[in-house]
Amino acid sequence: MRIGYIQMNPIFGAVKENLAHVKLLMEGAQAELWVLPELFSTGYQFRTGEEAAGLAEPIPNGPTVRSLLEIAGQRGCWIVAGLVEIGPDGRLYNAAVLVGPDGIVTRYRKAHLFYKEKLWFATGNEPFPVVDAGPARVGMMLCFDHLFPEAARTLALAGADVIAHPANLVIPEYGQLTMRVRAIENGVFTVTANRIGTENRDSETLRFTGESQIVSPTGEVIAKAPRDQEEVQVVEVDPAKARDKSLNQYNDRFTDRRPELYRI
Amino acid sequence: MRIGYIQMNPIFGAVKENLAHVKLLMEGAQAELWVLPELFSTGYQFRTGEEAAGLAEPIPNGPTVRSLLEIAGQRGCWIVAGLVEIGPDGRLYNAAVLVGPDGIVTRYRKAHLFYKEKLWFATGNEPFPVVDAGPARVGMMLCFDHLFPEAARTLALAGADVIAHPANLVIPEYGQLTMRVRAIENGVFTVTANRIGTENRDSETLRFTGESQIVSPTGEVIAKAPRDQEEVQVVEVDPAKARDKSLNQYNDRFTDRRPELYRI
Repeated sequence: MRIGYIQMNPIFGAVKENLAHVKLLMEGAQAELWVLPELFSTGYQFRTGEEAAGLAEPIPNGPTVRSLLEIAGQRGCWIVAGLVEIGPDGRLYNAAVLVGPDGIVTRYRKAHLFYKEKLWFATGNEPFPVVDAGPARVGMMLCFDHLFPEAARTLALAGADVIAHPANLVIPEYGQLTMRVRAIENGVFTVTANRIGTENRDSETLRFTGESQIVSPTGEVIAKAPRDQEEVQVVEVDPAKARDKSLNQYNDRFTDRRPELYRI
Repeated sequence: MRIGYIQMNPIFGAVKENLAHVKLLMEGAQAELWVLPELFSTGYQFRTGEEAAGLAEPIPNGPTVRSLLEIAGQRGCWIVAGLVEIGPDGRLYNAAVLVGPDGIVTRYRKAHLFYKEKLWFATGNEPFPVVDAGPARVGMMLCFDHLFPEAARTLALAGADVIAHPANLVIPEYGQLTMRVRAIENGVFTVTANRIGTENRDSETLRFTGESQIVSPTGEVIAKAPRDQEEVQVVEVDPAKARDKSLNQYNDRFTDRRPELYRI
């Protein structure tokens, strides 16, 4: 199975341009599963809740998801990507969708909000989703979820072979390091699609750290993007490799667990 | 508070010599909390359960713990170290003790056994311990526990400022990488005391990976030993820094957790 990330530099507020740019970037490569950054169609640094609401869309009937569905249908692929969702009750979520050639597959609302996201977004309250996408079972988490080992663990225990991780990482090194460990400790593939560039819309400069990466269940960094350039990268992986949790003939990442001793 | 590790190359079966060597290594430095490797007084690679039993000792009335108590009393320090314990029922455990100037403080029996340890040792069934050692609250885990994020998480949630991690690591890079992430995700200090050298006692060569390390709550590697040489290293840290779990004004490693969404 070919899985890939798109590392890009979204233009704040320019949904149409960002969607067109993604379409263009995808044309140079073929993948069955694509992962795009968090909030890839809108940019990240909102100044007010009203500004975020103005760029929010319902799922699936908004411009971003409709465009992703069109691409997935045309290219026969699955796409995980982040966007601002407005729920039926008017609440905003930092969300992700997984769309496939036959339509929308599932949605995720970020469970661990980072920094000023807490000012605009409601916290996700639904289970971390794991769904089929072609030959892989794909789990979704977003950016800062990486710091909480329970997020990736929950996805892996629910059967994820591949953890799709759209991100807008700003703390140097953290997300890249933790996601490598998430792959090792859970025996899964991880695909982190991070963005690059800077935003300075409320007098604070955010510098996004790039270095999108794909990690194997043994912790090998199979693909890694530069810090400051857009990059499209696709690798061939066998998702079934994530189903064998053994480390050696005596140890298994899952059956060796001791939940009775763990504090939650 | 001064905390340190002793990275050493134990001689298999030579308990007296290993204890004397540790005493000598400590003489060059002063620390309030020392961490020694797993099974530092016996060596690691047993060939049979009988051989392990022959090197096992009760806690606290065995040569290793008595010697550690003597050192702790003389030097006015706390020491975490690994040994083979024989329980009152004759079972063997891969264990660790924390001893202080006033006597033995607590014991830990390894909860996640690695590889052929499963042939000799019973699995620990007691909670991961966190106890006071001078100004720090110290948690204990052993070697392979590093792969299970729940171990360090449980210690941190129970109040550990410093995670003492005696080890006999053999998989290159894994333990050093995961323990750095354990420090970051829990906002604690971690002290991994690993051993060096090789053992080949049952036709399989085990190569221990060294690179003992001390990591700060932000993930900075404050001290790191070489791969293949003995090293004594002590650093000054403020354990209270591990009690502030905030990452910024909006995020806190503990209060941001979403246990209701986590699978255990």
